[in-house]
Amino acid sequence: MTRPFNFSAGPANLPEEVLQQAAAEMLDWHGSGMGVMEMSHRGKEFISIYENAEADFRSLMAVPNNFKILFMQGGGLAENAIVPLNLSRGASADFIVTGSWSDKSQKEARKYCDVQVAATNESSGHTSLPAAATWQLRREASYVHVCTNETIHGVEFHALPDLKALGSDAPLVIDFSSHVASRPVDWSRVGLAFGGAQKNLGPAGVTLVVVREDLLGHALPACPSAFNYKIVADSESMYNTPPTYAIYIAGLTFQWLKRQKEGELAGIAAMEQRNQTKAQRLYEAIDQSQFYVNKVDKECRSRMNVPFFLRDESRNEAFLAGAKMRGLLQLKGHKSVGGMRASIYNAMPMAGVEALIDYMQEFEQKLA
Amino acid sequence: MTRPFNFSAGPANLPEEVLQQAAAEMLDWHGSGMGVMEMSHRGKEFISIYENAEADFRSLMAVPNNFKILFMQGGGLAENAIVPLNLSRGASADFIVTGSWSDKSQKEARKYCDVQVAATNESSGHTSLPAAATWQLRREASYVHVCTNETIHGVEFHALPDLKALGSDAPLVIDFSSHVASRPVDWSRVGLAFGGAQKNLGPAGVTLVVVREDLLGHALPACPSAFNYKIVADSESMYNTPPTYAIYIAGLTFQWLKRQKEGELAGIAAMEQRNQTKAQRLYEAIDQSQFYVNKVDKECRSRMNVPFFLRDESRNEAFLAGAKMRGLLQLKGHKSVGGMRASIYNAMPMAGVEALIDYMQEFEQKLA
Repeated sequence: MTRPFNFSAGPANLPEEVLQQAAAEMLDWHGSGMGVMEMSHRGKEFISIYENAEADFRSLMAVPNNFKILFMQGGGLAENAIVPLNLSRGASADFIVTGSWSDKSQKEARKYCDVQVAATNESSGHTSLPAAATWQLRREASYVHVCTNETIHGVEFHALPDLKALGSDAPLVIDFSSHVASRPVDWSRVGLAFGGAQKNLGPAGVTLVVVREDLLGHALPACPSAFNYKIVADSESMYNTPPTYAIYIAGLTFQWLKRQKEGELAGIAAMEQRNQTKAQRLYEAIDQSQFYVNKVDKECRSRMNVPFFLRDESRNEAFLAGAKMRGLLQLKGHKSVGGMRASIYNAMPMAGVEALIDYMQEFEQKLA
Repeated sequence: MTRPFNFSAGPANLPEEVLQQAAAEMLDWHGSGMGVMEMSHRGKEFISIYENAEADFRSLMAVPNNFKILFMQGGGLAENAIVPLNLSRGASADFIVTGSWSDKSQKEARKYCDVQVAATNESSGHTSLPAAATWQLRREASYVHVCTNETIHGVEFHALPDLKALGSDAPLVIDFSSHVASRPVDWSRVGLAFGGAQKNLGPAGVTLVVVREDLLGHALPACPSAFNYKIVADSESMYNTPPTYAIYIAGLTFQWLKRQKEGELAGIAAMEQRNQTKAQRLYEAIDQSQFYVNKVDKECRSRMNVPFFLRDESRNEAFLAGAKMRGLLQLKGHKSVGGMRASIYNAMPMAGVEALIDYMQEFEQKLA
């Protein structure tokens, strides 16, 4: 039996192979006599799971050796406080506001430092990206924060800003929660990247933080030890008991990513090509229709989160009910935006996107 | 095939029924077409899982209605900061130090308020409990912190202190991580209880916080929103994406607990009786032997964590190797204490304790 296609924005669908393996190993991991949930985090079995997950993510994403990879807890919203607690030095930080997530980030950071919104796309209703040349960066900022994919508004940076070229020496902090591992990252432009796992990497409850080593060791006195990047880095993410099962599932997902191939491409390059194709097909179907509309500028449309509207919004409930009947789940848009949203993360196969497009066209034709 | 018996101090063994059900539901929860990891935390499916978990814990543990039950992240070590961030009001807090965990708690709290160790069992090597009458409680303390079961030292409070009787109006904060749900709690004596799930409730990555409503709303400005009890309570633990799968497994464990029976007893009362019997048998076997020793005062020995030593410590490695051969796993003591430790949480059946005692006696006799 085919599983339904689940377009949830997160927690989101996981590769079936990952879930199958997790189910098979639930009571006994590799002959250890223990399920992964039952292992001491300090035992050799879990240590091997952890080390493989770290190494697999590092190789997949080509993370340089001068960056630490941390597995933390609390998700992106906790990081909104944890980043300034660790990086702001109580001074100042600049934010580029491009949607709900970066706006939440700048509001939370105000507890810890002087915050400036250096650029915003608010006047466009978060459907564009402010050109880097217009950003009002401050020379003294401790860091510059960008959300590189706005899950709710469907706006994505297709290239990371080059802060040096903009005259800033501040480290760039990226919230890549909702497109991590969907495309390569140019680490030469990044100081710190964080992301909750529940969109593209695994289950909710583990947060990936990739941080350049020179940024460690400057936490504010009020920073809880469990969220002090230096303490977490020095203890290999085991200062407190890590979310072991979530790390295990993320590790299985990293292995799945490594196995992916598209023609000559493998791993993240293969994923990127597949994600490009999936997004292109869906946006084309929307743009070619008189019935559906996506309001985001073409050059910054997200490959992961595709918000769209029925021009006749009185049809919304019928659209969702029909989708569910066809096994197309969780398409309702975020309450702050309305309409529909199709999240098409790594684990969404092309067949899911095609099924959605077929359904959208049929729904439109039926009403024509 | 029988599974080995896993005596890990945490993450620890889970009921086999819980793991079986989780494996069976991994790809499709109740016909929804989604695994639990893949569900939006705001969808009706996960909301029902969450609400049932909350209600089941409340009924199991008889939590009064004026307490909120929160599902958070970060474990006990994060709570060591989160509690003073929320309750100290930047003033003062008193700590009863009875082992490693309460000692870590008081050290972390010093970041946020004036901390006093009001009593300690350090002079006994953490093998006793300081009599409540000797506690030097301060009238102005914002709260009094007690770790009611010290996982490493194997010391347990068999009754909660009555702070009012000691002349204090401060709320009692208990860290019940390693014996939560193993026995009832007298909530009339408690202001806040916290515990990581990974010992008695489920997987690592979810922290249970039970907090009296009148203690909400006094967080320090530096408290991250994701760890502000009032914000978490007001959003039903969904300010940030909760650790959904860990909550689901905890919920299955609560249901398993509700099904437990011992004679006329059910639920927590049944568990308590079983835990008493298990612990009694194991301590008797140790005390009756000339070969093994437990150094904790009899009146405060933990029912959950039983540290013991071979009088001839040169036999330690042979003891552990033989145990593993017999399917008795993770018996090595914590590095700070040495020797052995058998953690016999709720999910450890009597048969596991009996198998351990049999092995201990055989090992002793072979050397006699």
